[in-house]
Amino acid sequence: MAALSGLAALRAGRRLWKLPARPSAGLPGCWLRRGYIVGRAESPPTFGLLFDIDGVLVRGHRVIPAALEAFGKLVNSQGQLRVPVVFVTNAGNILQHSKAQELSDLLGYKVDPDQVILSHSPMKLFSQYHNKRMLVSGQGPLVENARALGFQNVVTTDELRTAFPELDMVDLERRPKTTQRPRNDFSAIEGVLLLGEPVRWETNLQLIMDVLLSNGNPGTGLVTAPYPHLPVLASNMDLLWMAEAKMPSDNPVSDVYGANLFNQHLQMAKRGEEERGTGGQQKRQPSTIQSCVSILVCTGIHSSQDPGSEGAQLPFHGHRDFSFSLELLEASHIVHDVNEAVQLVFRQEGWA
Amino acid sequence: MAALSGLAALRAGRRLWKLPARPSAGLPGCWLRRGYIVGRAESPPTFGLLFDIDGVLVRGHRVIPAALEAFGKLVNSQGQLRVPVVFVTNAGNILQHSKAQELSDLLGYKVDPDQVILSHSPMKLFSQYHNKRMLVSGQGPLVENARALGFQNVVTTDELRTAFPELDMVDLERRPKTTQRPRNDFSAIEGVLLLGEPVRWETNLQLIMDVLLSNGNPGTGLVTAPYPHLPVLASNMDLLWMAEAKMPSDNPVSDVYGANLFNQHLQMAKRGEEERGTGGQQKRQPSTIQSCVSILVCTGIHSSQDPGSEGAQLPFHGHRDFSFSLELLEASHIVHDVNEAVQLVFRQEGWA
Repeated sequence: MAALSGLAALRAGRRLWKLPARPSAGLPGCWLRRGYIVGRAESPPTFGLLFDIDGVLVRGHRVIPAALEAFGKLVNSQGQLRVPVVFVTNAGNILQHSKAQELSDLLGYKVDPDQVILSHSPMKLFSQYHNKRMLVSGQGPLVENARALGFQNVVTTDELRTAFPELDMVDLERRPKTTQRPRNDFSAIEGVLLLGEPVRWETNLQLIMDVLLSNGNPGTGLVTAPYPHLPVLASNMDLLWMAEAKMPSDNPVSDVYGANLFNQHLQMAKRGEEERGTGGQQKRQPSTIQSCVSILVCTGIHSSQDPGSEGAQLPFHGHRDFSFSLELLEASHIVHDVNEAVQLVFRQEGWA
Repeated sequence: MAALSGLAALRAGRRLWKLPARPSAGLPGCWLRRGYIVGRAESPPTFGLLFDIDGVLVRGHRVIPAALEAFGKLVNSQGQLRVPVVFVTNAGNILQHSKAQELSDLLGYKVDPDQVILSHSPMKLFSQYHNKRMLVSGQGPLVENARALGFQNVVTTDELRTAFPELDMVDLERRPKTTQRPRNDFSAIEGVLLLGEPVRWETNLQLIMDVLLSNGNPGTGLVTAPYPHLPVLASNMDLLWMAEAKMPSDNPVSDVYGANLFNQHLQMAKRGEEERGTGGQQKRQPSTIQSCVSILVCTGIHSSQDPGSEGAQLPFHGHRDFSFSLELLEASHIVHDVNEAVQLVFRQEGWA
């Protein structure tokens, strides 16, 4: 959960996802099961909320009762939000409106699809690739999602597999029974788009490797591996975590980490502006996000342990492009549940 | 291709596969596409032949013409072999008699199922696990193959997945729609049996990890990862190589490597016996395999390059339990095709 500064925090919230310096790193799992507040500014409400879903609002298939209480405070008697809210999830194999519908059903309040930020939403920024021929890997409404992001020329791994059946030989049932004639009518692939985890990893990994090693022409022989290889745009670089499994072995700290990392980015940008004399508090737009404060809720996989201490013992599952910093593991606040988190934000913002 | 010393080289050939000190490492890809000769001994025929299949006898779905010529020399007018022969393959997702039938159809000579050594055949040796409850991963006639090897109590990954549907959550279509009640009527798994590559690696890797981390009880919560973990018996530790694909990127040298490694093992065993005074040439059984000579045939993926020089540039794809030795990359002989190889063996053995 997070509070966004700015009058129109919903819009600010959407802009929020455009800020990371390396959106290719995707939205790390950090935005799952954790909360954070963004900013303090001038006019009421001067904050917005970013809600993580799994472990914060929902556990397994059930709404967490505290989430209903929290939304009782956030929604007025006309069913309208009193505070700007967006929902962030590292799910990507769904459509925005399906996720909005799912949340509406659970929360009993009508969630707009535009309030849902999926794992691959930042890829809207990669306009330079939107007209390139991209190999897309993932599951669910893959082509629909790619098109919604702006990618107009996509080939799925299934289409590629059908075009070059000899590349994917692991499954004995799908292995071609006759030797295939090489084809040369297949337009070169210009990039790879990973929209979350696919099924049949052996097939997807093989085809992606073949595309990269052949510089987008998997039907041709390999001379040398091209360097640099074709661009790979990936969401969901983190490990998948399942609340239902008895052994959720990964990523208990990265959600807080992501919120804090974003806050660090905001602070560094602000200092940079001040040092260059180009910015400063007085020149900043009132809707500019100024800070992001993380609130850890204990209805996720955490119940008692301090995430900082646990994080120190665990391997870092973030993307390799993110340097690891122990201090970013600690949430600014730890509360029992999302209802307490909303009360905390309201209190700190002097807002009720 | 290989020549086995001993009167009954077919039997010796079968014994051959029982000799490696670490059969858990499986039969590396080394036995693919390459040839080797084993031994010289007393009575005619004093040698036997181990034929690799892919690239030696068959390429893609077609028999290599030189293989028909070679078998013209090896089979007499009654359709009987003049020289003991076995066929070695790193395929494991098939039944011995299916592979024998396939070879019979291609070679026009009746191959006995006992002449076919599959990748997992050495697992017959692991009798201490034959009555344990083993999780088996792979594809094709999995349970049939496990039973044929001696494993009487197997659970497939599909059966485990059905028992614990919350463990395998990647595929959105298979993800359980309701929260599952934990079950405690599932007998503990005591080991893992990998019979070649499965399909849906994400499912298989996840379930195997869960079994290992939970010490065979995936329904229970994890306290600490057990050490040592349950035994994992694996065949096919090498990378899969496809003759049909335009970019066969892996393992061009490991077949020769495997033959030479076995020869090294034979020589060391012989020296050990001599040093201990327990053996020596005169005391060895005439059917004991004495040496293994590798013959590289160029109908595989090699055509001109010296495998040694190429091997020096390539990463070693063998199992980590095999130490890497550059000298083992070089074949004792390089010939054009399997017919030339048979001629070479006949000539060297003074046999026609």
